[in-house]
This record gives sequence, structure tokens and C-alpha cells, in this order.
Amino acid sequence: MKDIAKRFPENPLLSPPDIMPSHKDLQIACLLNPGVFQFDGKIWMIIRVAERPEQKENTISFPILAESGIKIMEISNDAVGLETKDPRVINYKNVNYLTTLSHLRLVCSEDGYKFYEPEGYPLLIGQGRLESFGIEDCRVSYIEGVYYLTYTAVSENGVGVGMRTTTDWKNFYSHGMILPPHNKDCAIFEEKINGLFYALHRPSGVGIGGNYIWLASSLDGVNWGNHECILKTREGLWDSARIGAGASPIKTRKGWLSIYHGANQNSQYCLGAFLMDLEDPSKILARTEETIMVPTEKYELTGFFGNVVFTNGHVVNLKEDTVTIYYGASDEFVCCAEFSIKEIFSLLHFY
Amino acid sequence: MKDIAKRFPENPLLSPPDIMPSHKDLQIACLLNPGVFQFDGKIWMIIRVAERPEQKENTISFPILAESGIKIMEISNDAVGLETKDPRVINYKNVNYLTTLSHLRLVCSEDGYKFYEPEGYPLLIGQGRLESFGIEDCRVSYIEGVYYLTYTAVSENGVGVGMRTTTDWKNFYSHGMILPPHNKDCAIFEEKINGLFYALHRPSGVGIGGNYIWLASSLDGVNWGNHECILKTREGLWDSARIGAGASPIKTRKGWLSIYHGANQNSQYCLGAFLMDLEDPSKILARTEETIMVPTEKYELTGFFGNVVFTNGHVVNLKEDTVTIYYGASDEFVCCAEFSIKEIFSLLHFY
Repeated sequence: MKDIAKRFPENPLLSPPDIMPSHKDLQIACLLNPGVFQFDGKIWMIIRVAERPEQKENTISFPILAESGIKIMEISNDAVGLETKDPRVINYKNVNYLTTLSHLRLVCSEDGYKFYEPEGYPLLIGQGRLESFGIEDCRVSYIEGVYYLTYTAVSENGVGVGMRTTTDWKNFYSHGMILPPHNKDCAIFEEKINGLFYALHRPSGVGIGGNYIWLASSLDGVNWGNHECILKTREGLWDSARIGAGASPIKTRKGWLSIYHGANQNSQYCLGAFLMDLEDPSKILARTEETIMVPTEKYELTGFFGNVVFTNGHVVNLKEDTVTIYYGASDEFVCCAEFSIKEIFSLLHFY
Repeated sequence: MKDIAKRFPENPLLSPPDIMPSHKDLQIACLLNPGVFQFDGKIWMIIRVAERPEQKENTISFPILAESGIKIMEISNDAVGLETKDPRVINYKNVNYLTTLSHLRLVCSEDGYKFYEPEGYPLLIGQGRLESFGIEDCRVSYIEGVYYLTYTAVSENGVGVGMRTTTDWKNFYSHGMILPPHNKDCAIFEEKINGLFYALHRPSGVGIGGNYIWLASSLDGVNWGNHECILKTREGLWDSARIGAGASPIKTRKGWLSIYHGANQNSQYCLGAFLMDLEDPSKILARTEETIMVPTEKYELTGFFGNVVFTNGHVVNLKEDTVTIYYGASDEFVCCAEFSIKEIFSLLHFY
């Protein structure tokens, strides 16, 4: 398995103790999967902060968002119909809940590795019936003066893609759920192509199909159509079980370059890349056979959910041939690594 | 279980022997789930015709659409990794295929129960990579002079909602997949509400969520957004496992009336109804606790997939207080039954 990442020596950049919980009854279990953008001369991350109550003996406690605010659910460990094998999910009487409730937090940096919480910017928390189990894994695309935030909206109704827009990071407009269940990993292209918005997304099949990357287009960035399946999992390889786009694709002279995550049957999450045609992104020109990054460091191997590197945010510098990838490690830490774009290209297999 | 359907004595209106197969290598296994519309002074059905090759001894054969045309797949009955419990699905080496390939066929009638194939109208067959396992269960909505056909598009990539439009039923324009996997049962409202198109649809959750009815809106009928979950399955009732909208909702003075199907854990499919607010269809005003129709006749109990009544087409006559529901029985026959709209209303429980 190839790994061409130059990890920051400062990793992890952020760990749960570095941030204050959002609520007196909650503790931070994980900081992970940051969206990244540039604003006001700084580099910003919009981090997923996953919280839960202090766990009491013999009881599993988890928070959900009710109309009145945060509500703590408690289930006795020996309750009939309780299953807690996956650290991320509780199954109780055949209904799934999340062990943690995620919101999104803004941090910024002058140098790209020392991040702090700026004053005067709000937390983003779930709103309404479709976000009562939280909001997660936000991608940020900057298009014609507007920041588009696409994130995973989770509730008992299902898992879909929610969207908000902002121009100043203080006032946000909610567009509700733009892609219905089961869907995640939505990355909008930062430039229109022939007058249309494009987005990568990851619906999931039931019975027929799988966890593949799809492309959609839109006239307004809000209403989406013309869905096409463009990239699939590969049996026997590192991306055999599920794949999903990282941040907004990188425009290069040879095509749109997308960094994506792939998981195998053991839920090891690695990174790879693929290249789309500049004029028609439904045409896949090339894909890495190998990984470009594999969980290897201690903070990538051990944590809330180990053996994971997952990215949904980066900073591109084409002149210096770098993409600086911010990533979630072990579903618990926020980390960073630099890649040479040329080196990523050298691993692409052209069709 | 309540049943207020007045079944046509002519049922089944159409059975597999009534129609010619579309291809010399195929036989018709099922005629089912008709969309219904009025055109040229007649009542028309767009029927789902499910075909397969003659089954040879010791071999299971099924068709798929390849670029070059219909391709017959053959798997020996004793092949390792073959599972054929469900008459609708073949699982081979952990990949699902359909036992039949569906296309859509037009038939018309002067009286609403004697249907024939008119000359000069095309078959509608799957097109491209997202319809290679066929197209199914077409709903037809007539909006401002255009017929919108929404149907289930099936391929190895997944199951989603495809759309074509027509004005003359001879020339069709394909809009590709308008709702990505896993999605079915899409019924567009036949009137815009405050300038927006609306549609009911049925995405499926994976892990979290279920098989619920959702609402979406659109500026152009092609690109969709603002997805909301509006109706759920009910544990212990006839609609405990999955629900999905029938034909386009019926505009009444009290609200938009939708006939829907519900299935329980034993895959018995019945019909019920719910009522949406005229101005804001995301508000559910009422729902039947009971069924309005249950499989009871022999042709509803026994067939390709028995114990099923399923509708996606009807003719409404508000003056005469009738909705004439065309339906698929046992996934094999096309049938019809008349309902009193007042009687359906009498079974609605208002919230």
C-alpha cells in the first residue's frame, strides 16, 4: 500500500481536550473530518465535534436534539434488545441511534497548523426534524462569492445531505436537505461547467447497487438532477466496501482531480485519487490503483474508531505543486499532511 | 382489514398472454403496475411488462440490456453462490440481478376496461447505463400541457427514479435520473403550488431511517431539492415494512389526497390513503388507520408474487365522487377497482 503523504510533525493538530464542549452535560468524544476554506486572510477549518454525556456505570447514555434542546437518552447496559458493538452506533430494539451528537465548529489559523477558535463566530448545530441526530463531515465550496456548506444530516428519518450558504460565516441560510437518504460525502465543484453547478455525492444502494460515487448537476446549486454513477468500489482492493469524495475537486490542466476515501471490508479507511474530464466530469480519465495514504501513525491506528484517515478539506497551491490535506484520524483527531500534486498524478492510471 | 374497493367484474383486465413479447427470445412473465393518463379522448395505461427467456432445465436464465441489445445471462442451478428464494431477484456471488427485464407498453381504451395496443406508438425500453436492468412502475403526471413520466430505473449501479417527458406519446425527451438510489415510487403533483413543482418519493435508509414517503420541490420539474420526510411506516400495522405513493395526489377541497401502498413484514401489499395540506403538502392532515383495499381475490392472492395489490395509476371524477384505481395484482395481472372518494375520506383519521 503506497503512502506519499508528508505528515505535519505537529500532528495531531487538534484533539478533544483542545476545545470546550458545547453544553454543560456533554463531553467531547471526537474532533474529526474538517471542511477547509480560506476567509479573511486566514485558513479556516469547520470541524465535526462529536459529543456525548459522561458514561455512568451500567448505563449507555447518548444525546439527541429535541425541539426544546439537547435531550439525554439512557439505556441500561443489560436492557433486552441493546447492541453496542460499533462504537459509533447503538442498536436498541432494532432502531439505530448514534453514540455521539455532532455539531460543526469554526477554527482558524494564520500558518495552517496552529488553529484557534475566533471570537464572534457561531457554532453550527442541527436544526429541525432532519438533523436531530446531528450534522457531520462538512465540505465547503466557494463559488462566485458564496460559501456552500454541504454536510451529512442525520436523524431517525435517515441520513442525507444538508446544505447551508453564507458569505460572512456569521449569517447562514439553510436550504434544507438537498439529497435524500441514504446519501453522504457531497462535494460541490468550485466552478460552474458550461453554466451548471456539479457535485460529487455518495448514495447507497439497497440490494442492488453499492456505495459508489455519483455526479449530479444543478442550475442553482440548490435543486439537483441528472444523477450519474461515475466511480465504483473494487473487489479485492483497498476500496472494496465503500468510497466517497473528499473536498471539492481540484482543477488542473489535465482534468478535475478528486481525492477520495475508500474503505475495505475491515473498515480500514485509506485515500486515493481519480481524474475527471474538464468539460464533462462524468468522464473518468484516470484513477489510482494504489492508495496515496494509509493509516500508519499511532493517532491514525488507535482512537474512537481506529485505522482511519478520512478527508473532506484541503488547501491547493498549484504553483508550488502542493495540496495540503486536512483529515480526521481514527475518528478522533484532526491532522494534516502535504502532498505533491505531480506525485499524485504519477500514481494515476489513465484509461 | 377494511376493503372498500368495487372491483371490476372484468378483472383481470390484462394478463401476460394478452400482449406480444417485445423480443423473440423473451416471454412475458408479468403485466403489472400501470401508470394511467387521458389522451386523445381515451384512457391510456402505460404498463410494466416483465419478460424473461424460457427457462431451461437445471439453468436459470435472465435478460439484461447491453449496448448491443438484449443479452441473456445463464447460470446453472447448482452454481456455487446462487440464491433464488425471491421470485423477483437472483443473488449470484453476492450480486443481485432481476429475474425479469421490464419495459413500458402503451395500451388504450374507450370504456376504461377493454384495453388494446394502438398502432404507431413506441415501446419504452431502458436506455443507457442506469436502466440496464429495466424500467418499472411508471407514474404519469400531466402538467401545463406536458406529460411527466417518472419510473423506477434499475441497473447494477442501483435503483433510482428516471424521468421522460412527452406531449404526443411518440416523441420522448429523457431527463436521466432525477432521484438517486435507493429511490422509487415518485409521483409528481399535477399542479404547481406557489410556483413550485412538488413530488412524493420513497428513498430508503441504510442502518438509520426506513422505507418512508418523502416530499421534494423543484423550480423546473427536473432538478429537485428541499427533501422532507412526511409519512412513516407504522409498527404492528399493515404498513409496517414499507410505504410508497400511488399515482399523482388528488386535489380535493380539503387537501391533496394520496392513495399509497403499504407492505407488512410478510410482504403483503395493501392500499391506504393520506391527506396533505393544499398550500403546504409537507403538512399531513389525516391518514387512514386501516387499509382501503386488501388482496382478497384469487388473482390478487396467487401469481408471480402473490398477496399484492399495488397502484400507480388512476382516473379521478370528483363530480361523480369516484376514483377508478388501476392496479397490479400479484405482480402478474392488471386490474381495476372503483372507490368512492367520500368513503375514503370517511376512513381518514384527522390529526
